[in-house]
Amino acid sequence: MTIREMGLQAKAASIRMAALEGEVKNKAILAVAEALEKHSGEIEAANRLDMAAAGGLDKPLQKRLKYDQTKIAASIEGLRSLSALPDPVGMTQRATLLDDGLELYRVSCPIGVIGVVFESRPDALVQISTLCLKSGNAVLLKGGSEALNSNRILAKIVKEAAISAGAPDGWLQLLETRADVSEMLKLDDCIDLVIPRGSNAFVKYIMEHTSIPVMGHADGICHLYVDKDADVEMAVRLTVDAKTQYVSVCNAIETLLVHKEIAASFLPRAAEALKAKNVQLRCCERSLPYMEGAVPATEQDWDTEYLDYILSVKVVDSLDEAIEHINLHGSGHTDAIVTEAKEAASRFMALVDSADVFWNCSTRFADGFRFGLGAEVGIATGKIHARGPVGLDGLCIYKWLLKGNGQAVAPYADGTRHFKHIPLDTSFHL
Amino acid sequence: MTIREMGLQAKAASIRMAALEGEVKNKAILAVAEALEKHSGEIEAANRLDMAAAGGLDKPLQKRLKYDQTKIAASIEGLRSLSALPDPVGMTQRATLLDDGLELYRVSCPIGVIGVVFESRPDALVQISTLCLKSGNAVLLKGGSEALNSNRILAKIVKEAAISAGAPDGWLQLLETRADVSEMLKLDDCIDLVIPRGSNAFVKYIMEHTSIPVMGHADGICHLYVDKDADVEMAVRLTVDAKTQYVSVCNAIETLLVHKEIAASFLPRAAEALKAKNVQLRCCERSLPYMEGAVPATEQDWDTEYLDYILSVKVVDSLDEAIEHINLHGSGHTDAIVTEAKEAASRFMALVDSADVFWNCSTRFADGFRFGLGAEVGIATGKIHARGPVGLDGLCIYKWLLKGNGQAVAPYADGTRHFKHIPLDTSFHL
Repeated sequence: MTIREMGLQAKAASIRMAALEGEVKNKAILAVAEALEKHSGEIEAANRLDMAAAGGLDKPLQKRLKYDQTKIAASIEGLRSLSALPDPVGMTQRATLLDDGLELYRVSCPIGVIGVVFESRPDALVQISTLCLKSGNAVLLKGGSEALNSNRILAKIVKEAAISAGAPDGWLQLLETRADVSEMLKLDDCIDLVIPRGSNAFVKYIMEHTSIPVMGHADGICHLYVDKDADVEMAVRLTVDAKTQYVSVCNAIETLLVHKEIAASFLPRAAEALKAKNVQLRCCERSLPYMEGAVPATEQDWDTEYLDYILSVKVVDSLDEAIEHINLHGSGHTDAIVTEAKEAASRFMALVDSADVFWNCSTRFADGFRFGLGAEVGIATGKIHARGPVGLDGLCIYKWLLKGNGQAVAPYADGTRHFKHIPLDTSFHL
Repeated sequence: MTIREMGLQAKAASIRMAALEGEVKNKAILAVAEALEKHSGEIEAANRLDMAAAGGLDKPLQKRLKYDQTKIAASIEGLRSLSALPDPVGMTQRATLLDDGLELYRVSCPIGVIGVVFESRPDALVQISTLCLKSGNAVLLKGGSEALNSNRILAKIVKEAAISAGAPDGWLQLLETRADVSEMLKLDDCIDLVIPRGSNAFVKYIMEHTSIPVMGHADGICHLYVDKDADVEMAVRLTVDAKTQYVSVCNAIETLLVHKEIAASFLPRAAEALKAKNVQLRCCERSLPYMEGAVPATEQDWDTEYLDYILSVKVVDSLDEAIEHINLHGSGHTDAIVTEAKEAASRFMALVDSADVFWNCSTRFADGFRFGLGAEVGIATGKIHARGPVGLDGLCIYKWLLKGNGQAVAPYADGTRHFKHIPLDTSFHL
């Protein structure tokens, strides 16, 4: 089957997916859970093939690639939670009586066909495909090539279990090569949204090579701003967590901004704590004297995502200078302020133009599971549709339903009838 | 000033716009209303210059270009309604207690900087700019060149009145030429969304020449489906209204689909009523014998937006064939069913994949004012962010605010602490 044929099949299936009852989708998700349990031996065997071929890869990658009984059990647990969440489709978001007998409803519906390109974790295939299923979307999936054997068996199991419970044929399509992805990017008449997960360079490549809307993020240049009224002990703890708890992720901080009035008390303590974690410090002129072992920062540092044990540090004169720095150099992902002053926090949260703006907690909380969205298909830094961690909500859009009893527009246009525009309660029924 | 400098000014202003209190924005909108009233003589004079130069244009265009006391009064009336609407910014859409002392809020916020390219109506400038103001967005505007004198004075009045009431300098920028628009389309680091209004060809041109997200619609191929259980009299009335009430608009129908079982009773009456309005009929083989004076349709007719007194007609065997035809040949804009059968309506509304799906009423109701959205900046047929008539809601996105008291991620990552994920009521306060 060609990629175009796969796209057309998915498009045909997407119409039926949109009309699936919530109950059918939940049964399908539970059927996937059962099938994973039943076939866990075969899944492990396929994954061992991938692991055997991955001997030359680095350790963290191998760890992500591994899909054993423990991880399969975690996937099954995740599916049970997903089935228990409310159906995101068919929710009436607003309702208006336009005139007697003319009722307008805005109702959530699936986006349609989603193309997801993701990294090497086989559990991501299970998570993403079932998020699409629950939100009524058909999906084209392309996972990391290192996980090909795992992905093949998982895609087959997920697809067939869901179909056995009532999902339409063709709802899930597995792509296997980079050439497949290139073909997929051309299918602007079949695919409604592309979600790329991976390196900056990869996401940028996808954005530049398709006219299909893309949801995702390239850079993750996150900031922690330590205000003059910060609790110093808290600021040190949060700096260490936000930088070092997991350095290679997009919501780890790359730049620390510090108010000049707290620099002398905070920076030496931060330097000590970061040194214990082997973090290299790149400092502006004013922070350099306070941080032992630091090197001078260059202008380029403010625009760099290290994804490593490196942190740039800058002293600012004011809250507003910090906000301006973040809006200029940040990537609109996640930025946090540490302060005991409510007004400073309020101003920071209003003026920082990022998907996630945090007060007195670590930037590392920016995550779909941690946010309680069930799971996430990705984090978006665009400002269209969905932003920040994207779960079920972000896989839905809405349509407007208008129910009348023969109303023409003519009498409203010539002024013989007038609109009432009275809000209705949002329980929609025909 | 270069277009890039305008974009940068708008971007700087957008941060301040985002933080404007609702009260300040309403004062600014009322200040615009007052200024329009005060300067109505000058506005009329400028518009007369445009009208004088437009002698060679066709009558409907001249009618749209005219901006006299009556239309100015309507604009002022519209501004008073707009100021009375609730502030779309700062609304908490969901709230979750992640853990004790760790509260997550999803709060609506402006998109940022919006570039709008619109047609010759000077009242559109007032409407669009103030929708942006109310939703806290900075805006770059380019109107029809025929309206240049009107737009210059209106942009000046709207901009300055709003600034006098507290809006930031630079929030509104007026572009004047096509070359300006080309420059604007390059500003993907300043502009968050482009909204083009105009012909299909123009909208397609914009979509193909920018990497900024575009919201709008190209084609408007709308359908009316007359089901076997339709009320024939109602079906005839709605066909005439949806086709002829205003033929040159995107929500007028281009194709009439008719169930085979009602063809014999409905089509001859529809033909008569449409003939009285001088509509040319292009019929499929099965409808042709029922419609006097009709010509045979070609395959191309099903994909054509006439925007004229022309209607294509097709007999279908079933509701599902009608749905399939619409999803295949339609443009995802507005499609309607006429039927007395609730189940047929329900299936049609669930399966037709369009922004607006109507039952027993005219497709011509697809309009922001008629929907009660106050006004609209456009109609969108994409499936990302906003769809159908786009009012204040569609000019906002959200950000996630997380408020803690020192929480690091580490204890949640190593399993010593667990998330609670308890829904909170959505009244956000720091």
